[in-house]
Amino acid sequence: MTTFSKEVMHVGEMASGAKLTVPVYRLKADSDNKSMEKVPSVYIQANMHGAEVQGNAVIFQLLELLKNIKIKGDITLVPYANPVACNHKNGEYTLGRFDPITGMNWNRMYHFDQSIIKPFVQECIGKDDAVIETNFKTLMIDTIEQKLDHNIFGLTTGQRIAYQLQRLAHQADLVLDLHTGPISSKHLYCPEYAKESASYFDIPHTLLIPNEFDGALDEATFCPWWHLQEAFADLGIEFSIDSKALNKESFTVELGSQEQIDLDVALEDAKSILSYLQYKGVIDSTEFQPAKMQRYGCYLKDYKAFYSPMGGMVDYLAEFGKPLAAGEPLARILRMDNYNYAQSDGDPLHYISLDHEVIPILHFASASVNQGTELYKVFTKYFTL
Amino acid sequence: MTTFSKEVMHVGEMASGAKLTVPVYRLKADSDNKSMEKVPSVYIQANMHGAEVQGNAVIFQLLELLKNIKIKGDITLVPYANPVACNHKNGEYTLGRFDPITGMNWNRMYHFDQSIIKPFVQECIGKDDAVIETNFKTLMIDTIEQKLDHNIFGLTTGQRIAYQLQRLAHQADLVLDLHTGPISSKHLYCPEYAKESASYFDIPHTLLIPNEFDGALDEATFCPWWHLQEAFADLGIEFSIDSKALNKESFTVELGSQEQIDLDVALEDAKSILSYLQYKGVIDSTEFQPAKMQRYGCYLKDYKAFYSPMGGMVDYLAEFGKPLAAGEPLARILRMDNYNYAQSDGDPLHYISLDHEVIPILHFASASVNQGTELYKVFTKYFTL
Amino acid sequence: MTTFSKEVMHVGEMASGAKLTVPVYRLKADSDNKSMEKVPSVYIQANMHGAEVQGNAVIFQLLELLKNIKIKGDITLVPYANPVACNHKNGEYTLGRFDPITGMNWNRMYHFDQSIIKPFVQECIGKDDAVIETNFKTLMIDTIEQKLDHNIFGLTTGQRIAYQLQRLAHQADLVLDLHTGPISSKHLYCPEYAKESASYFDIPHTLLIPNEFDGALDEATFCPWWHLQEAFADLGIEFSIDSKALNKESFTVELGSQEQIDLDVALEDAKSILSYLQYKGVIDSTEFQPAKMQRYGCYLKDYKAFYSPMGGMVDYLAEFGKPLAAGEPLARILRMDNYNYAQSDGDPLHYISLDHEVIPILHFASASVNQGTELYKVFTKYFTL
Amino acid sequence: MTTFSKEVMHVGEMASGAKLTVPVYRLKADSDNKSMEKVPSVYIQANMHGAEVQGNAVIFQLLELLKNIKIKGDITLVPYANPVACNHKNGEYTLGRFDPITGMNWNRMYHFDQSIIKPFVQECIGKDDAVIETNFKTLMIDTIEQKLDHNIFGLTTGQRIAYQLQRLAHQADLVLDLHTGPISSKHLYCPEYAKESASYFDIPHTLLIPNEFDGALDEATFCPWWHLQEAFADLGIEFSIDSKALNKESFTVELGSQEQIDLDVALEDAKSILSYLQYKGVIDSTEFQPAKMQRYGCYLKDYKAFYSPMGGMVDYLAEFGKPLAAGEPLARILRMDNYNYAQSDGDPLHYISLDHEVIPILHFASASVNQGTELYKVFTKYFTL
Repeated sequence: MTTFSKEVMHVGEMASGAKLTVPVYRLKADSDNKSMEKVPSVYIQANMHGAEVQGNAVIFQLLELLKNIKIKGDITLVPYANPVACNHKNGEYTLGRFDPITGMNWNRMYHFDQSIIKPFVQECIGKDDAVIETNFKTLMIDTIEQKLDHNIFGLTTGQRIAYQLQRLAHQADLVLDLHTGPISSKHLYCPEYAKESASYFDIPHTLLIPNEFDGALDEATFCPWWHLQEAFADLGIEFSIDSKALNKESFTVELGSQEQIDLDVALEDAKSILSYLQYKGVIDSTEFQPAKMQRYGCYLKDYKAFYSPMGGMVDYLAEFGKPLAAGEPLARILRMDNYNYAQSDGDPLHYISLDHEVIPILHFASASVNQGTELYKVFTKYFTL
Repeated sequence: MTTFSKEVMHVGEMASGAKLTVPVYRLKADSDNKSMEKVPSVYIQANMHGAEVQGNAVIFQLLELLKNIKIKGDITLVPYANPVACNHKNGEYTLGRFDPITGMNWNRMYHFDQSIIKPFVQECIGKDDAVIETNFKTLMIDTIEQKLDHNIFGLTTGQRIAYQLQRLAHQADLVLDLHTGPISSKHLYCPEYAKESASYFDIPHTLLIPNEFDGALDEATFCPWWHLQEAFADLGIEFSIDSKALNKESFTVELGSQEQIDLDVALEDAKSILSYLQYKGVIDSTEFQPAKMQRYGCYLKDYKAFYSPMGGMVDYLAEFGKPLAAGEPLARILRMDNYNYAQSDGDPLHYISLDHEVIPILHFASASVNQGTELYKVFTKYFTL
Repeated sequence: MTTFSKEVMHVGEMASGAKLTVPVYRLKADSDNKSMEKVPSVYIQANMHGAEVQGNAVIFQLLELLKNIKIKGDITLVPYANPVACNHKNGEYTLGRFDPITGMNWNRMYHFDQSIIKPFVQECIGKDDAVIETNFKTLMIDTIEQKLDHNIFGLTTGQRIAYQLQRLAHQADLVLDLHTGPISSKHLYCPEYAKESASYFDIPHTLLIPNEFDGALDEATFCPWWHLQEAFADLGIEFSIDSKALNKESFTVELGSQEQIDLDVALEDAKSILSYLQYKGVIDSTEFQPAKMQRYGCYLKDYKAFYSPMGGMVDYLAEFGKPLAAGEPLARILRMDNYNYAQSDGDPLHYISLDHEVIPILHFASASVNQGTELYKVFTKYFTL
Repeated sequence: MTTFSKEVMHVGEMASGAKLTVPVYRLKADSDNKSMEKVPSVYIQANMHGAEVQGNAVIFQLLELLKNIKIKGDITLVPYANPVACNHKNGEYTLGRFDPITGMNWNRMYHFDQSIIKPFVQECIGKDDAVIETNFKTLMIDTIEQKLDHNIFGLTTGQRIAYQLQRLAHQADLVLDLHTGPISSKHLYCPEYAKESASYFDIPHTLLIPNEFDGALDEATFCPWWHLQEAFADLGIEFSIDSKALNKESFTVELGSQEQIDLDVALEDAKSILSYLQYKGVIDSTEFQPAKMQRYGCYLKDYKAFYSPMGGMVDYLAEFGKPLAAGEPLARILRMDNYNYAQSDGDPLHYISLDHEVIPILHFASASVNQGTELYKVFTKYFTL
């Protein structure tokens, strides 16, 4: 029988003393899982960025679906991961990508210090993979505990939240961080080594991420293992983190557009995640299979932001997810301050295009842009997966 | 021949000394309009609220269409009416409904002091309607000039902008203020006496506004005339502001949702405005006729905002513009902090409904709401027009 | 013996479900108060505007001082009255004068509908003052209860907070709402009829407020009684709200500048409030007496805001609280975009002055101003109290 | 004779098309400077962060003072360096440390790519210092030109501003970037090699900065030269950037607190800068000499931010600029939600102290803090300079 439990994690305190908490839901695997095979455990969180709320609905649908499914690995689910961000309104919208006091991106505050790898590897030579795994997990968790509890100068608001989430994530093998773009197609951030897994999600666009830590949760959970694998490899020792035995994977799942909850779409996304978990052996249900679709990949270095060459008001034209030929317009920008009645060439309209083919993935959330506002993000040099 | 001209109006100055200007486009009627009949002049502005940008695109399409049409009355078009608001970003969105320093709604800063009416009427007894019209227009413009130029304690940022726009608007007979809702259907604010005109716009929902000044541009331009008519009526004198001779009308045209520019939709909206201008004799083209559609009206007092009874994340369910039966859900609110796995009744979802039939017109721009956030605005006690 | 108790009032809920609460501290009068004389009860709140925090420190010092004083009337103290506002940061500062979603001033959301007065007076003819008082208090509280609990379209975030505070305030005779200015001297908003009481506070500047309800807490608590008195007076009946028997007074106490906590200054302010409460017989201690000082008064209509005639950066020059002669500079505005090296007259500096004597009371919180930003507020036509 | 000129640099465009410009004032050295000795040129900018406005007043006072002084080196002065930031209000304050759309710190967007150093050094072996200097300056300027003009994906809003300023700064030998803290004492960011120069400013606290580029203007202008010097040193070649011949120095001058203009204090600060310029031979006046004062230094790695261990309202206690003994309170935090009348120990007050001696340099701008808000920045392990 699956055991369900709920904890409430205290992640912050506001000026009035109001305590901000995060609910942590845990599903313990059915105890009769007697097979010899290791089943990976799973950590799923949503809403680290305040406006990216759809992941909460996906967690709701996951929980509803999992009621009727045999669960072989432990699953931890954390909606509303960042209540500071998710409650911060400026006007009608949620100012949720960064700490409103400091401007720090909430998803760049996780911790990984690469210098722990080498000494650890030295200690591990000759040990079993399972022992190494256990010890490394302990090391990562201890490092985070240390940061949380033993810092005389304190932690920033964002670190306190991120480290507590990271402490939970390190306990799992598979980590899914549910985000959204501004106005966006679905896409997946996937470590390069886990490319195969990407096709078990119903998400047509995959970004392949190198082994470089930039502060995000997916990186904070896969980079340590990947660096560990590389450090062993440098010594000629195989330690394969994508083996059945270790099975370490982390993804940032971009569910579409921000500022929206749609429970019907969330059900589809939950099924897509279950398809991945079925593939990984976490659940025992053949019901969830990936959809057949054209899938595109792109390396992170080729994922380009296009910044507006002018201030103005944008009519976004390019459709998401489909190759856009060189010269075809991404957008047209209206500049009514420059209207000239006499000319027939409609000069207040400026068409924006690129000189090579791209796949548009997302665009800015508002029609009003300054010179230099990020208009679109596009796959360049993409390939089929 | 139509004469086109452009002016640049200086409406504000920022801390760095940056001057904020508003472009004013004028189309002078064809000079060969020799008919005896008075042709009304028109004032159209857009983007007084910063995020409500679609009206700029409509002005673009109007200007493009008017190039090929014979114009009998003067038309003044003002896009980007409020550059302070339209340039004010907080996060990705435009914080544009109110002055970010004071919280004052930019569209509640126009001026009308009812006490000018009675003395004016006393002076006018026995005069011709045309003389009264001219004198009253002069009085209104002088009043605004006085406020702009002779105030030793100065003007607020919003007053300075609003009064300059109002000075232009008072020069016209017909005034259209182009706005949008947050996420919204098209609807029209129409003074009660001008109900007939509403059906010349391709807009299915009309709010009928009483003769009460609350600071908005439409009211600031129609209330003075309406009060004048009433003051004459109190003396038993007929002064009919919706006669062919006077023809005073003002509308706030709500074009749909904010934060969006769509030039194709703007073309449709421009044609809808030309249909109204054709009806009023301002242009000479039979091309533009109102679409046939089911039209609903509602008195302003019956236009109700529904405030969220709880904090949470909203899946907006009710379709805009169609009657929603009593008890049918407007929205469902997700509260993942309250998820209870054991119960099968899905208790983190709260359905919101009303106990009588309404027509939903618009809803809040974000899924994340506090307790007390305005969720929907609805027509109650609506009727067919 | 004084009884102390604490309640926690639930005033709001954020998107994550986070509950916002307000602590309510109550001191019950010593039970051996056997005198025949009625002792007024007191309600004191602080921090309705988010950045105006010093009142919380004053409540702390009041509670500390009251531990050693015999209390004859009940005292209710509410710090952090508006946790939504007090927790809302934009950048380093607290955006706390208005609801960040709607722009509504948090201190303009209290309720008073004057139409309840006349029917109530009709019912009361011939009754004792004490009965009238009890019944009117009940009517005001019931009206608020009604608004809180029986509104099918719900309440705004601000109304829900304001009405709950108002329900507490209506239970008291004397109401103090602790605020601050932006950068400000201490000043007091005082109903015209309570002028005598003003001199028991250690506050040199008093604004005298007419009987007009504009949504603030002081007005919401004194206007109903004042209107009641006037309605009785219209019938030739004396009902004296400033009598010893009724003793209804409400003040907005402006403690100085926002964004600051100073516990030493707070102790002085607490003593000043105790001086008033001693005068009113609420406490039994001769220790607290008003300081001797030059006191100035000004009618609300003569309290003027001066708006900046230009954008720029302001060096505020005029000292608070002292008469400033006509022509003397309030401020000088720097406009470095206009610097002209050749001229010796320092043309990037613009001096701002008025043509009549004023007392500057407060100025804007920042040196950077737009054209139309409120620079100073000043007493004009002031008089000694 | 000194030649004065003004240019207007176009740095950005808002959604309405409003152009944002920056004034650039240039003083050309007296042409009769016939001495053999090279005189360094100077670049001074202010207000890159929106709320840090005092530098504009210092530039005003510098220009006024320089009218009467013989100038031997060219001086470029740029007030209002970032009009996007300086015009961005949220509530009454200026949200100016970061791009309100992206959260990016405006002073972390300058450019330096260390990989240009090695190839350049290879080309320069055997060349004169003066030639190397000229060529390296050209390389740095060309690199920035390239980034400004030849980027098909465009530039961010902040890059466009920063690169244009950097292009100007690279043309000078001495660079001063005028900033302020939130509420702050005066302090100076100084590259480690330029320590001697620090004592020519009337600023008692100096931070010594290592050769690590983190995106700020001072680093973007001194790091390239310092890396160049080190690369030559690696080859055993002396190329001394702090020699009289090269004389490359950059400082971030922290003038005190933000949101304030004080022209009298600005005059003192201008004199302090002239004392430094006199020392460097840029001006010919013995009038300006550094004040005698106790001066403290601290390495950047020992400059510590202390983050609040709790939410609450802060009474900042520690005085700036003076050593604070271990255990002495930095601040006390009020938590009125926790008030307990019965206890005499004042439990809602939490005292914050450190276990070693520090010099407090600045504190947060507001009394209201979240758990994790930066309370103070302090020198640890400081030393006398």
